[in-house]
Amino acid sequence: MAKTIAIVLAGCGNRDGSEIHESVLTILSVVKSGATPRFFAPDMPQKHVVNFLTGESMSAERNVLVEAARIARGDIADLSKLKAASADALIFPGGQGVAFNLCDFLTNGPQCSVHPQVERVVREFHAAAKPMGFICIAPCIAAKVLGPEAVELTIGGDPDTAAKLEAMGAKHHCTGASEIHLDKRNRVVSTAAYMCGKNIAEIECGISKLVQQVLELC
Amino acid sequence: MAKTIAIVLAGCGNRDGSEIHESVLTILSVVKSGATPRFFAPDMPQKHVVNFLTGESMSAERNVLVEAARIARGDIADLSKLKAASADALIFPGGQGVAFNLCDFLTNGPQCSVHPQVERVVREFHAAAKPMGFICIAPCIAAKVLGPEAVELTIGGDPDTAAKLEAMGAKHHCTGASEIHLDKRNRVVSTAAYMCGKNIAEIECGISKLVQQVLELC
Repeated sequence: MAKTIAIVLAGCGNRDGSEIHESVLTILSVVKSGATPRFFAPDMPQKHVVNFLTGESMSAERNVLVEAARIARGDIADLSKLKAASADALIFPGGQGVAFNLCDFLTNGPQCSVHPQVERVVREFHAAAKPMGFICIAPCIAAKVLGPEAVELTIGGDPDTAAKLEAMGAKHHCTGASEIHLDKRNRVVSTAAYMCGKNIAEIECGISKLVQQVLELC
Repeated sequence: MAKTIAIVLAGCGNRDGSEIHESVLTILSVVKSGATPRFFAPDMPQKHVVNFLTGESMSAERNVLVEAARIARGDIADLSKLKAASADALIFPGGQGVAFNLCDFLTNGPQCSVHPQVERVVREFHAAAKPMGFICIAPCIAAKVLGPEAVELTIGGDPDTAAKLEAMGAKHHCTGASEIHLDKRNRVVSTAAYMCGKNIAEIECGISKLVQQVLELC
């Protein structure tokens, strides 16, 4: 029977939601591996809405679940519906929306708080020993929730971000965008993607490896 | 020197803009082939904005270029800036926004009109004998602009849509989503993608073939 991979999204676009390329490459790799993706996002207002042409904030209000549905082509559910029993693994693509909406790491650093439903699913999958993948900036969630478990992560090589993850209890490993880091004990896989990747081909390599590793752990 | 491929977007999301998966897979294939993508979209209001969770129209107003910038990660220009001399080929990913914003095929069928800048670039690339790729529903643009050239196209196998393309002068060829159709004389390549594709792996196959064929024609 095909494995089911829950993919948690944070909106649609790297500056205020989920990174679109990383999300689509995750879906591609999951489907090419014969697994089935299922999409979830929290039903909440976005922290902000960015005009991607100018880089400035817009006055508009958008909903994380409604915008994430663009990447999922409409087939997405409220994150509150996701239980560890209903999927074999959990993957978080990156994008600044992960660190603005799913937690507030980009605002509050190591003192960040994590959205209650995000924290719940990470704890449930961890308790069930089901593998989790964190892409790009998404390891900040793992660091906050699983820092007390000394979770091992990579966000590439940026020393400032790495120091902030370590301040939450994580152990950071420097990698390139085409690589992954595996924390066998916590069953957590991470890849830096656009945290340091120069182009879509490079991040595809890392994301594909992450998905393969997550599936091997299922 | 690396070939430059102009990718024309119509917004961000398959129901009111460019199909996100098709757009990202086009970028992936272009970059993996060693070519350089450059992004363009018309600076105009979207025909409508869809709530992807409910499928209903929202009262919000959004701009095609600003939303398309989400897929392009901010690096996009107004379509009026694109000249045939500045790129080696032109590719249109699909999505209903192509047939609502770049032309009004989904409203007016064979009597549709094409956005003036879209029509201009298609005519310029055709006159310069530079190859063009049309994905999913985007062949409706080629049919309208190049129908008098008896352009050959595929949108998969839907007889109603195929009949509408033929009513504009095009010749339709039935294909599966993992295939392409090549019109050698007009240097036009098309693939059905999500017009009939069942999943992202299947459409990746067709889109990858389309990009390879377009690059071979450059």
